[in-house]
Amino acid sequence: MSARPGDRRLLVRDLAQLVTPAAASAPARGADLGHVDIIEDAFVLCEGEAIVRVGPMHELGTVDGEVEELDGRGRCAIPGLVDCHTHACFAGDRVSEFALRAAGATYEELHARGGGIMATVTATRAATEDELLQAVERHRGWMLRAGTTTFEAKSGYGLDRETELTSLRAVKAAGGVATWLGAHAVPPEFPDADAYLDFALREVLPAAAELADAADVFVERGAFDSDQARRFLTACGAAGLALRLHGDQFTELGAVGLAIELGATSIDHLEATGDDGVRALAESRVTAVLLPASALFLSRPMPPARKLVDAGAAVALATDFNPGSAFCESLPLVCSLAATQLKLSPAEALVACTLNAAHVLGCADTVGRLAPGYRADAVLLDVPDWRYLAYHLGGPIVGDVVLAGERAELR
Amino acid sequence: MSARPGDRRLLVRDLAQLVTPAAASAPARGADLGHVDIIEDAFVLCEGEAIVRVGPMHELGTVDGEVEELDGRGRCAIPGLVDCHTHACFAGDRVSEFALRAAGATYEELHARGGGIMATVTATRAATEDELLQAVERHRGWMLRAGTTTFEAKSGYGLDRETELTSLRAVKAAGGVATWLGAHAVPPEFPDADAYLDFALREVLPAAAELADAADVFVERGAFDSDQARRFLTACGAAGLALRLHGDQFTELGAVGLAIELGATSIDHLEATGDDGVRALAESRVTAVLLPASALFLSRPMPPARKLVDAGAAVALATDFNPGSAFCESLPLVCSLAATQLKLSPAEALVACTLNAAHVLGCADTVGRLAPGYRADAVLLDVPDWRYLAYHLGGPIVGDVVLAGERAELR
Repeated sequence: MSARPGDRRLLVRDLAQLVTPAAASAPARGADLGHVDIIEDAFVLCEGEAIVRVGPMHELGTVDGEVEELDGRGRCAIPGLVDCHTHACFAGDRVSEFALRAAGATYEELHARGGGIMATVTATRAATEDELLQAVERHRGWMLRAGTTTFEAKSGYGLDRETELTSLRAVKAAGGVATWLGAHAVPPEFPDADAYLDFALREVLPAAAELADAADVFVERGAFDSDQARRFLTACGAAGLALRLHGDQFTELGAVGLAIELGATSIDHLEATGDDGVRALAESRVTAVLLPASALFLSRPMPPARKLVDAGAAVALATDFNPGSAFCESLPLVCSLAATQLKLSPAEALVACTLNAAHVLGCADTVGRLAPGYRADAVLLDVPDWRYLAYHLGGPIVGDVVLAGERAELR
Repeated sequence: MSARPGDRRLLVRDLAQLVTPAAASAPARGADLGHVDIIEDAFVLCEGEAIVRVGPMHELGTVDGEVEELDGRGRCAIPGLVDCHTHACFAGDRVSEFALRAAGATYEELHARGGGIMATVTATRAATEDELLQAVERHRGWMLRAGTTTFEAKSGYGLDRETELTSLRAVKAAGGVATWLGAHAVPPEFPDADAYLDFALREVLPAAAELADAADVFVERGAFDSDQARRFLTACGAAGLALRLHGDQFTELGAVGLAIELGATSIDHLEATGDDGVRALAESRVTAVLLPASALFLSRPMPPARKLVDAGAAVALATDFNPGSAFCESLPLVCSLAATQLKLSPAEALVACTLNAAHVLGCADTVGRLAPGYRADAVLLDVPDWRYLAYHLGGPIVGDVVLAGERAELR
């Protein structure tokens, strides 16, 4: 990104710390995952939507002309957070199901009892396009308040042509990166998964490929098996979409091998992944997207994050925000869980939900770092040390968010 | 509490739901723990610092005279939350230790390496009385933002006469309920725990008993054993203090039996409590205070909450807010953890951190319920269903807080 003459300018000055992942043309792996650059007593200068300079205050010099200033004293700047896995386009909620699960019912039991994904499909199909857009924008406001400046959101609660395409349009209209989760579940009007895929690939894919950046599939018992996922993703890849998979959430069904075979961008979840899967991912170019808030929400085992990082895999973190298995849009909370449950350092967690998440979304050339040429997206934390991002569990740490060079209004 | 003529009045009207624990002269147990009264389309009328009426809108009638109104549409009211276990009086932080632990060091290893409680003792001893008061008030502001209107805070980061008494004064000056945690750790200037207790009981207890409502002791390897705890608490009880214990956090050392023997108000932590301890507590009048944010923060097993409730024990929930093992002041987050990790229903969680927590603090006649005669402390949740308190993990759900009949300014 470059600035143009006459662009408005914003100077964030006197920051206690500025922290950014180092430059990388690919997702950071192994020891590089924890590599961040830290500038004490720092500034960020933005012109228009872009960052034009960052550095220590003693290098700032005189800034000529009109410039809005934001006081960074007692604050730390990190890049705007990037949430690369959400299901933010839905209507209704699943709070009653949540209360039942607290009383002992399992996710699979609730699913079998007509709760689960299909309850949200019913509510989402019943919503108008305007209602869905309002829902995504409301969720997007929550994310922004938690420091997320770039978000992905999937369809997958429509599972008919109209609602799937409406969902993708709503995500794009709210400024998100849209993923067609055309293979989320098999809706009841189809006799089986294969019949549903016949429909989805014939009737929905051509238009979905015009709207979405990527396609996604839920590989799981009761959803789609490995062969069905191969068929779905192969067709989506041929239509020009990047490929992603929900894999190994409850059971290992070959999703890791399939992701590698098809050159997928990411495989997400991995709570059930064993050592063979860890080794295979480490040797591949597929990014492992970990969702610890989902594991917490469902009281499931955590994914083998430390093993993946130590083996050299590319790891990203995301919220999995959705109404059933992770009603949580907060990446700072995810960073806390990464430190306490996944045994990632605060630096590893930060890189995983900025630089690496941006690579998953294909936008790492413009977001995920605080450096000249990047979009001016930053979170100003009201904390004395940037690692409070992970340390202050559930705390009110987000002071201000700068979005494309402007101070955002937080709701 | 009763209103006086001429008191200012506040009417919260058109609430989607008003939820309150039912009346109870003792902590709720067993099936009663999940007993809440829910009024749809409700109001709360406050005069001065007290609630004078609650009910459905159709019973409101005309309210004569001057009254400030607060719009409750799209909101749910719950009682102001009561945090009955915090260590909110401290200086400094332990963010570096947190980052080390994320990299694999255990709590006990960090403690042995000079981190842990003594690091905070050093920082707290070095702070002035004014600095400590400012720290408690800052933490109290965070709590209020998360919906906590009544908080307890312990000393225990002084462990010398002056800092212990200064800490208790700071807690009271910030509006908290003060607990003298005179037996938190053995400071290095004493040869052993017994020598330290000689000093604490002789030099500190008489003045601490004037300031604090309760005394507390950490029963654990490396801190105080059961006999030392008995000696400490017996002296504190004779001085008129209520008795509390940190017990069974890492190891069962007889704290449950001691709590029952001494008629303690509460035993707190219980992550390591086995079935015998559960049974003994269920048959006793001691409240089990559970601290799931601490278990999460330290990546330790969760306490046996479901077993305790099902066996008929009185259970309360609290944050354990402190810089080392639970840097978390959010009771809504604790309610989420209660639902997902402890398998308590949202109603059980709410009663545990309102009514039952108020009983632990000895103030259940004035706080912990939304009912006439109680202090007008309420949280207005910006949610369509009050159970979002537990469901929306880390979400921005607290819209307004009413504190002693006035809308509080949230920082």
